[in-house]
Amino acid sequence: MTLKNAFYAQSGGVTAVINASAAGVIETARKYPKKIGKVFAGKNGILGALEENLIDTSLETDKQISLLKYTPGGAFGSARYKLKGLKENQREYKRLIEVFKAHNIGYFFYNGGGDSMDTAHKVSEIGEAMDFPIASIGIPKTVDNDLPITDTCPGFGSVAKYISVSTHEASLDVLSMAETSTKVFILEVMGRHAGWIAAASGLIANQRNDPPHIILFPEIPFEKKNFIKQVERSVKNNGYCVIVASEGARYKNGKFLADAGTKDSFGHKQLGGVAPVIANMVKQSLGYKYHYAIADYLQRSARHLASQTDLKQAYSVGESAVKMAIKGEKSKMVTIDRLSDKPYKWQIGSAPLAKVANNEKMMPRKFITRNGYGITSACKTYMLPLIKGEAYPIYKNGLPTFSKLKNKLVEKRLKTKFMV
Amino acid sequence: MTLKNAFYAQSGGVTAVINASAAGVIETARKYPKKIGKVFAGKNGILGALEENLIDTSLETDKQISLLKYTPGGAFGSARYKLKGLKENQREYKRLIEVFKAHNIGYFFYNGGGDSMDTAHKVSEIGEAMDFPIASIGIPKTVDNDLPITDTCPGFGSVAKYISVSTHEASLDVLSMAETSTKVFILEVMGRHAGWIAAASGLIANQRNDPPHIILFPEIPFEKKNFIKQVERSVKNNGYCVIVASEGARYKNGKFLADAGTKDSFGHKQLGGVAPVIANMVKQSLGYKYHYAIADYLQRSARHLASQTDLKQAYSVGESAVKMAIKGEKSKMVTIDRLSDKPYKWQIGSAPLAKVANNEKMMPRKFITRNGYGITSACKTYMLPLIKGEAYPIYKNGLPTFSKLKNKLVEKRLKTKFMV
Repeated sequence: MTLKNAFYAQSGGVTAVINASAAGVIETARKYPKKIGKVFAGKNGILGALEENLIDTSLETDKQISLLKYTPGGAFGSARYKLKGLKENQREYKRLIEVFKAHNIGYFFYNGGGDSMDTAHKVSEIGEAMDFPIASIGIPKTVDNDLPITDTCPGFGSVAKYISVSTHEASLDVLSMAETSTKVFILEVMGRHAGWIAAASGLIANQRNDPPHIILFPEIPFEKKNFIKQVERSVKNNGYCVIVASEGARYKNGKFLADAGTKDSFGHKQLGGVAPVIANMVKQSLGYKYHYAIADYLQRSARHLASQTDLKQAYSVGESAVKMAIKGEKSKMVTIDRLSDKPYKWQIGSAPLAKVANNEKMMPRKFITRNGYGITSACKTYMLPLIKGEAYPIYKNGLPTFSKLKNKLVEKRLKTKFMV
Repeated sequence: MTLKNAFYAQSGGVTAVINASAAGVIETARKYPKKIGKVFAGKNGILGALEENLIDTSLETDKQISLLKYTPGGAFGSARYKLKGLKENQREYKRLIEVFKAHNIGYFFYNGGGDSMDTAHKVSEIGEAMDFPIASIGIPKTVDNDLPITDTCPGFGSVAKYISVSTHEASLDVLSMAETSTKVFILEVMGRHAGWIAAASGLIANQRNDPPHIILFPEIPFEKKNFIKQVERSVKNNGYCVIVASEGARYKNGKFLADAGTKDSFGHKQLGGVAPVIANMVKQSLGYKYHYAIADYLQRSARHLASQTDLKQAYSVGESAVKMAIKGEKSKMVTIDRLSDKPYKWQIGSAPLAKVANNEKMMPRKFITRNGYGITSACKTYMLPLIKGEAYPIYKNGLPTFSKLKNKLVEKRLKTKFMV
């Protein structure tokens, strides 16, 4: 048996620690030179496999690979590209196998969310059918924390830490200015379907009237009248009101608040966030001075405030994927299994890809307070360990040192070009 | 001569390190118990003096005062409240002196920007006129970095560090997604009149085509056609375009970009930021997918990423204000004087309040590249030392430990209430 190479790709929205998973894969593979050949990374994720744009990671120094642990974004490029079903589009899957064959790739490590696990599963199936078996292992990643079975998703702990710390800092700012200036502050955070990221802001509240005073979850239908009453009460009781809103906050009929039909002066529809809509609502109803922040990519790329727990888990799922593949496992996603809350203990496990694919995990109702605007102690017990520890990047002259890869492509071996 | 007390107040928008200046004042005063009595802090800044709401800082523990160095926001409350001129409103100044007399206050430490230096100056003048001399010392503070004479303003170095690091992180995120998703990313930052904060993002660019590809300064009139051309060129050459925009970016006629006449679905005027306006411009002209972030208060309260240089200077201006007052100086603002660039050396100096008041410092033209979209090496030489060093807060269970003050008020001694 010749030594098989591995293919690694990043998929979907990147995180502050997805490159730590890449480091886990590459560093571990380098430890087993008799088991795994080279690790090729897909340039721009799965597109790299389809287009035969394979990055030869063996040309990168140990130092630069190690620096991946401190580097946000996706070091090889990621892609928002979902392969269609096997029946609709065998062409893509067959192409993947052709490329894998041409480069003697026997391992497929796919680092992504639910859609990616679906793809990894199908690659495994088609490999079998085409008599070119691929050890397909899913490596979980998503700031949204919405993958099933795994206790948490690498990437989430760091965005949660960023949002909780940022909310605390901004709350102190607003509190100190409220008497003569801004009374309502709104922070818009990611989470189109699930409120995990918004929930993280609640970790800073220890006493009644502590900020954030209102959290808006996609899971709880938004009621304007009640919301306005809450804002007014908070300003009357506390002098100010801090609101953290999921971008996916929506009305009972499912309509997103962000979809407010805003138009610019030329009459063009303005694609807006939820924060300005809420701000305007507050202004119109109560007249309070407001400010809002939209964290957007800052939150998911905030490597400077990554959680040590998250970083460790992100590395570990990459490392474990390689070890599982070497042991002959396939069609599995690596999972993080929680053993206990206090003290927080976890271990690496696995789940069949088929069970993970296309299956979102929402915030359980018991994690949200009865009035729908806060988080419960059960939620805190779950979430606090995930933001623990500070995994700072290395700074030089005031700025972080990030990995700089060569990202040199392997010479193509196939004659046909593939058009995506 | 009886021992005089001191009054300290925070003014205007707060910063990540204004409380470090407070710690500098209070800790230094505690070292000279034979020179200075108690330090009273104004509850909500100067309003605390006018309303006789004086916080007795002597009741706070050394530990909590020390923790102020790690705590963003304004620990005693700040205020956006500008005292009118002496001629229009002697009432307010007289009231200040009355309160100071009633509480035996002989030192006035005012921690703020240009307006505050003007107030401090007038307090000094009226004290003389009313035969109750006050040693009035200004302590500089502003994220906007727009005070004259002083080489930099405490608060700026930290926001500059936050913006440069955040821009770098988000740029790596966008770069990795650009092939199949977002091509243009816009970060809106503070700076209504001066582009210092936006300029800080340019510190991460070392080579041609490095992000940020476009910086929009208030000092450079915005030209849509040229701007769109730049965006298009960046996306064609680099695959993506990162734009950092000052909230004060404006057209040649002085009109702010943010003032775009945006209306919501009810026809209400929507007060927006500059980022959505630019995003829409890009979308309409070039059709690129965009994302934008609005840093707002997150940037000026980001104590988690404070600059060590900035923290040290913020503490030092507070400490020096007390030492200067003890030496009998008055009507001065503490300044930070640069002695050399490489290595960066600075010392504390002072300037007459009269010279500082109401005198804004814009970005010099030589700090901005010829095309108006970037910063020069002269700007980098000036700015890099200011973001140097990481002054992390102390974390416990994943979250920073902030100071918790009692903020107990001194009993009132005046019979009259003052209505602001």
